Amino acid sequence: MSSKRDKAGSLRKEHVGQQVVLKGWVQKRRDLGGLIFIDIRDRSGIVQVVFNPAHSEEALQTAEQVRSEFVLEISGEVVEREAATINPKMETGEIEVLAKGITILNEAKNPPFQILDQTDVAEDLRLKYRYLDLRRDPMQKTFILRHNTTQVIRNFLNEEGFLEMETPMLTKSTPEGARDYLVPSRVHPGEFYALPQSPQLFKQMLMMSGFEKYYQFARCFRDEDLRADRQPEFTQIDIETSFMTKEDIMEMTERMMKKMMKDIKGIDLELPLKRMTYQEAMERFGSDKPDTRFGLELINVSDTVKASGFKVFDSAVESGGKVSALNVKGAANQYSRKDIDQLTEFVKIYGAKGLAWLKVEGEELKGPIVKFLSEDVTKELTQKLGAEDGDLLVFVADKVSVVHESLGALRLKLAKELHLIDESKFHFLWVTDWPLLEYDEELGRYFAAHHPFTMPELSDVDKLESNPGEVRAQAYDLVLNGYELGGGSLRIYQKEMQEKMFQTLGFTKEEATEQFGFLLDALEYGTPPHGGIALGFDRMVMLLAGRSNLRDTILFPKTASASDPLTDAPGVVDEAQLKELHLALRPSAKD
Amino acid sequence: MSSKRDKAGSLRKEHVGQQVVLKGWVQKRRDLGGLIFIDIRDRSGIVQVVFNPAHSEEALQTAEQVRSEFVLEISGEVVEREAATINPKMETGEIEVLAKGITILNEAKNPPFQILDQTDVAEDLRLKYRYLDLRRDPMQKTFILRHNTTQVIRNFLNEEGFLEMETPMLTKSTPEGARDYLVPSRVHPGEFYALPQSPQLFKQMLMMSGFEKYYQFARCFRDEDLRADRQPEFTQIDIETSFMTKEDIMEMTERMMKKMMKDIKGIDLELPLKRMTYQEAMERFGSDKPDTRFGLELINVSDTVKASGFKVFDSAVESGGKVSALNVKGAANQYSRKDIDQLTEFVKIYGAKGLAWLKVEGEELKGPIVKFLSEDVTKELTQKLGAEDGDLLVFVADKVSVVHESLGALRLKLAKELHLIDESKFHFLWVTDWPLLEYDEELGRYFAAHHPFTMPELSDVDKLESNPGEVRAQAYDLVLNGYELGGGSLRIYQKEMQEKMFQTLGFTKEEATEQFGFLLDALEYGTPPHGGIALGFDRMVMLLAGRSNLRDTILFPKTASASDPLTDAPGVVDEAQLKELHLALRPSAKD
Repeated sequence: MSSKRDKAGSLRKEHVGQQVVLKGWVQKRRDLGGLIFIDIRDRSGIVQVVFNPAHSEEALQTAEQVRSEFVLEISGEVVEREAATINPKMETGEIEVLAKGITILNEAKNPPFQILDQTDVAEDLRLKYRYLDLRRDPMQKTFILRHNTTQVIRNFLNEEGFLEMETPMLTKSTPEGARDYLVPSRVHPGEFYALPQSPQLFKQMLMMSGFEKYYQFARCFRDEDLRADRQPEFTQIDIETSFMTKEDIMEMTERMMKKMMKDIKGIDLELPLKRMTYQEAMERFGSDKPDTRFGLELINVSDTVKASGFKVFDSAVESGGKVSALNVKGAANQYSRKDIDQLTEFVKIYGAKGLAWLKVEGEELKGPIVKFLSEDVTKELTQKLGAEDGDLLVFVADKVSVVHESLGALRLKLAKELHLIDESKFHFLWVTDWPLLEYDEELGRYFAAHHPFTMPELSDVDKLESNPGEVRAQAYDLVLNGYELGGGSLRIYQKEMQEKMFQTLGFTKEEATEQFGFLLDALEYGTPPHGGIALGFDRMVMLLAGRSNLRDTILFPKTASASDPLTDAPGVVDEAQLKELHLALRPSAKD
Repeated sequence: MSSKRDKAGSLRKEHVGQQVVLKGWVQKRRDLGGLIFIDIRDRSGIVQVVFNPAHSEEALQTAEQVRSEFVLEISGEVVEREAATINPKMETGEIEVLAKGITILNEAKNPPFQILDQTDVAEDLRLKYRYLDLRRDPMQKTFILRHNTTQVIRNFLNEEGFLEMETPMLTKSTPEGARDYLVPSRVHPGEFYALPQSPQLFKQMLMMSGFEKYYQFARCFRDEDLRADRQPEFTQIDIETSFMTKEDIMEMTERMMKKMMKDIKGIDLELPLKRMTYQEAMERFGSDKPDTRFGLELINVSDTVKASGFKVFDSAVESGGKVSALNVKGAANQYSRKDIDQLTEFVKIYGAKGLAWLKVEGEELKGPIVKFLSEDVTKELTQKLGAEDGDLLVFVADKVSVVHESLGALRLKLAKELHLIDESKFHFLWVTDWPLLEYDEELGRYFAAHHPFTMPELSDVDKLESNPGEVRAQAYDLVLNGYELGGGSLRIYQKEMQEKMFQTLGFTKEEATEQFGFLLDALEYGTPPHGGIALGFDRMVMLLAGRSNLRDTILFPKTASASDPLTDAPGVVDEAQLKELHLALRPSAKD
């Protein structure tokens, strides 16, 4: 094998006459009129190679043995194609390589699926033969984009004076938050490490260590049930700073996003990014991560309908709930009664009891509920909703949270069905003023909405005891196209505040010390004001690459059952290994 | 808190007259003649701040409350120091900051140890209060160096066309190699993931995926008993390439080291780096990772002494062993009989039966064994060893492996005792032509010396069955100052060869398929020739930073018992968590 190598995809007309050495895979072979044509593929692209007996009979004979996905080394000369054979669809389509020598570096069986840009192969098969799936051009491009994005972000943070630092993977399990992956200890019988859900406490301790600016592309782990947009292990851009205000951190993050969008997508992002409070996001979009690439906003019509005489509306408002509507512009004819029945079933998933609707015909409202509404009410509704001929109006009347959640989901569903979303757009948005705490009805206590180290708004601190649900956090989430790209907050840096927080979460003093004693200790030895942000990197790449499946942005992802069809992980282990770890399987493991 | 901030350690005479805002820690406070002096420390360094009642009585009063490690925000003006108070030991020693305002951002208890450059605090205490230990200047410098080294290596590899890629942490356990850390699966009862000992198979599959050039700062895990230079989790610079020859990979690695040494240490490394076969390294230095910063080489005197009549020498050579010597120049007077007895005890650790010795007095050899040696033999010895007046000659006669290992270790011990090592030097060395296999006497079978995917020298392949111990690997280790910095190899890329390798290692066909079936499959679908290298990054940083303890190069390291005194990991977990994982503790866990 020669040390020299040229990139197949880089050859152009200007290289005509050059001697080249190509090493790559057979994309395709065609035999035509005594000649053999082989498309050779490497990371850079594809070029056509011609074997002509007039030039080398021996090379032609070897080329005859070649099939798809064979690995070849080819030496030859770049020549211009005849006008009639120029292929404008190929970047290298004006030239071809006239082969002089060919070596088969390795053979290939017929692959279980073809290496094509578009594929309808079942995902399980793609994952089982991931090394073949990854050869496809869109996959290659995605991981090259991932690499490039990594470097852009890194260079930005390096220039801002951040230090890249590695925090441990074998850490301590803490009961707050999601379920930990555990790692049994051989040396400490009956004890376990936990894989980090995030380096949260370590990055805070790096601030206590005086490093001031930290970042890491951090691998994180959550043993939760998986969905299309979740993986048991994922990567986040993890950032923490000392002495920066909330505004400082948001402004720095915005510049980072601007740089990324420019370098990766060639898009000029206008700064500052738009901001919205959590409250406003819920009211207008029914979501804490609104997709603002389209309108179709929720409109609160409670005041208009509260005494309409229509019981469903009236009682919702009376009992402290609300009535909100979507005006689906011009969609009246696109949704039959049957279609609307399906929308009704859809909102029920989110707890809504039903979906009221009206259609606008000329200047009139039509539909089953119109008989319950007075002329004044219909007039005010028409005006408030900007209803025009052909519009479809849908209403949910329920508890506030149900109205928001169901209409928020319906809004997205309708936007997809009606193609309201311009997929080429990138809409960034900050969501601020998050609630600090969430009440868990089942467990009857408050939980930290983000994590227990988030700083409350100082003006709300006195409500921590009297009305914890109303305390806002000094937290900010960055949303892109309806996805939560990441979030951050200022952290508690004073021991008394941290103790108060643990108390609000229902920890006894002993429990707080048992689990977070080292943090409480550290807060006493000169902890600087600090805060940070974490951005989901897999998801970021997914959005930048214009893909919709998180698994397409991770080289070797897990399936929905957290297994890897390629290596067949997880697997059984020897009894001897378990014994060393002081563990035994329960009967439930042996079913 | 103000958004403005100046770096304490960056202030110089040229900044005199500027208004600055400092945020940092109190390194030291002194009260003197009605004034208060506070040394403020941040990541950039230290500067002296003066509180003068003539300027701000209020600031002085606040400054009076301040103690070590308080976190402060100070506004003031940079002023020149009077000539008599200039401190040439401080980089900022020509100026000081005249305080106008001061805010105590956070208080600090008296820390359990002082934040000083030099410390003799017990390591366990340092680890328990790691966030204080990391504030010390040498620790700050080490992790800044680590960050810088990371970026130099990354930029080099990016420019070479490598893609940074992330491989999974939740992988499959394989019995070859060191002990795996296991992660029980909740979804698959009785099954386990393993944390990777290295991304070896994944990086090979990336080559099968056509990515051609891969790198990663990869976290790796080994559940082995720990020593000062081992940690349960560690970071390696993991590199794999397709279509590159062994020479290509070594040459590229050399340029990377040259760039690193230049950018991080300002040292011009001469290329190509020196090379030595494994055989030569063992014979001359008694080590597969020779420290070549000093001589004191092993000299084989078997031929000279084999028929000397001295039974110890004779029988060693007759039974297939050897006799080698070190000439410890000018050390005859430094080692008494008692000292030499201690050296004898030392070599016994390595299995040597004893240590013969001679001292050179004038032109004569003296010592207990001299009576066994003829004049011819002493003369030839003198000449072969270059023995001169005042030299100490030591001999081990034994099995070849014992001679090498014991004298190799003695060589290092003597070099340290006699200060033969110039610690400012960086000696890189390639060790090549490694044995492919090692025989395990206990288990009665061959094991892969590196890993089972290493390509044998093609000219040795026919010995795989007849004489496996003599087969050389296409492998190369990079040694720096007597430490193994890393190693790599070309990999097997043909299925038949890989099957032959598994067979040589005693795998049945079924076992090979069971454990490595996915690899054998992948080899059939167009695997390119490939190879790579992995460099131990923690150790590299240790050597660059001039430190001797690996734990000083890892932010939150584990102790020798694999625990973390800071967070107290590992820890016990709830019975409910174990139940979810289908696990129970054995009685051995409850002792």
